[in-house]
Amino acid sequence: MASPRERLLSTAAELFYSEGIGAVGVEKLCQTAGVSKRTMYQLFDTKSDLVAEALRTHGPRTVEGYFPPDDAGLTPRERILHVFERLEDDAGRPGFHGCPFVNTSVELHDPSHRASTVALHFKRLLESYFERLAQQLDAPDPEVLAAQLTAVFDGCSVRAVMRAAPLDGLAVRTAAALLDAAITSEVIDTMPTAR
Amino acid sequence: MASPRERLLSTAAELFYSEGIGAVGVEKLCQTAGVSKRTMYQLFDTKSDLVAEALRTHGPRTVEGYFPPDDAGLTPRERILHVFERLEDDAGRPGFHGCPFVNTSVELHDPSHRASTVALHFKRLLESYFERLAQQLDAPDPEVLAAQLTAVFDGCSVRAVMRAAPLDGLAVRTAAALLDAAITSEVIDTMPTAR
Repeated sequence: MASPRERLLSTAAELFYSEGIGAVGVEKLCQTAGVSKRTMYQLFDTKSDLVAEALRTHGPRTVEGYFPPDDAGLTPRERILHVFERLEDDAGRPGFHGCPFVNTSVELHDPSHRASTVALHFKRLLESYFERLAQQLDAPDPEVLAAQLTAVFDGCSVRAVMRAAPLDGLAVRTAAALLDAAITSEVIDTMPTAR
Repeated sequence: MASPRERLLSTAAELFYSEGIGAVGVEKLCQTAGVSKRTMYQLFDTKSDLVAEALRTHGPRTVEGYFPPDDAGLTPRERILHVFERLEDDAGRPGFHGCPFVNTSVELHDPSHRASTVALHFKRLLESYFERLAQQLDAPDPEVLAAQLTAVFDGCSVRAVMRAAPLDGLAVRTAAALLDAAITSEVIDTMPTAR
């Protein structure tokens, strides 16, 4: 059976994601996790610490859920688009509440909060993934392409939250358009007739 | 002097934006607005009503702040890019906490909350603006282009919040890339050699 610490962390990750950080008090957290408040405060100094630690321990699963397996035999372009296909899948599900990292930063309103820095760390993992693949695609500016793809990921995620509706291909289509634009402009740049 | 109702609405709009909806209690709201709790509850049944009404009354100023004046002599493309230039300006300012409509939806975790429907209404105003201009540009699919531009707007806004850093041209550059992609693909589609 999971330890009180593990139960608190998984309950926190789940409830903060589904209901919001501010909406879930210590009382409810402890009750749902089946842990006394006394035990909780022995394990975590404050609710803020629990917010940060729940995101830190459960974040890797969220990020890795978007990446295809290494042995999937996909091209760099297909690997990038796989992330957006997974987002389309997720955004169509009833329990979808957007990206937990975006939600944490938006809800806390404080970029110096430890949970906000944890959130940014995981968002950067996604962007680094895009950047490595953009380099493999010989994109002229892999850093910019990675930032663009991350913005599309987050903007589409926010859209699904606001409309409570699936994305109907918007995420994949937009990512593909930016990939094509980056690669087309490279081709034009190196064509002698364009000089 | 502003009425208690007006003071409550502008205080609410300001505090919810800068500190978050959950972080600002009725006590603080009333104290900052200089209105008794008794008066507040005579004017608004619940805090939720105040959240929705503050967004409804202050939302138009936020949206219109992104649009160029009608007589600015800009082309449809320039009008679209103006929105992203304004976002770049805003995102570089210390008091920037992202889009108030996105924040409201994300924080409330409830698309059926009246404030979430108000937030979606204003987000749709931005998207309709993009769609009208995309039609004027003869984009092959103005509805999709408008959705893409809205996603880039929101994704870049979220980026500035998470990193607490300016966008350094990312928003304008990404919007321009999608505009070019939409118009380029139209040209290719109608070229006889591409058939």
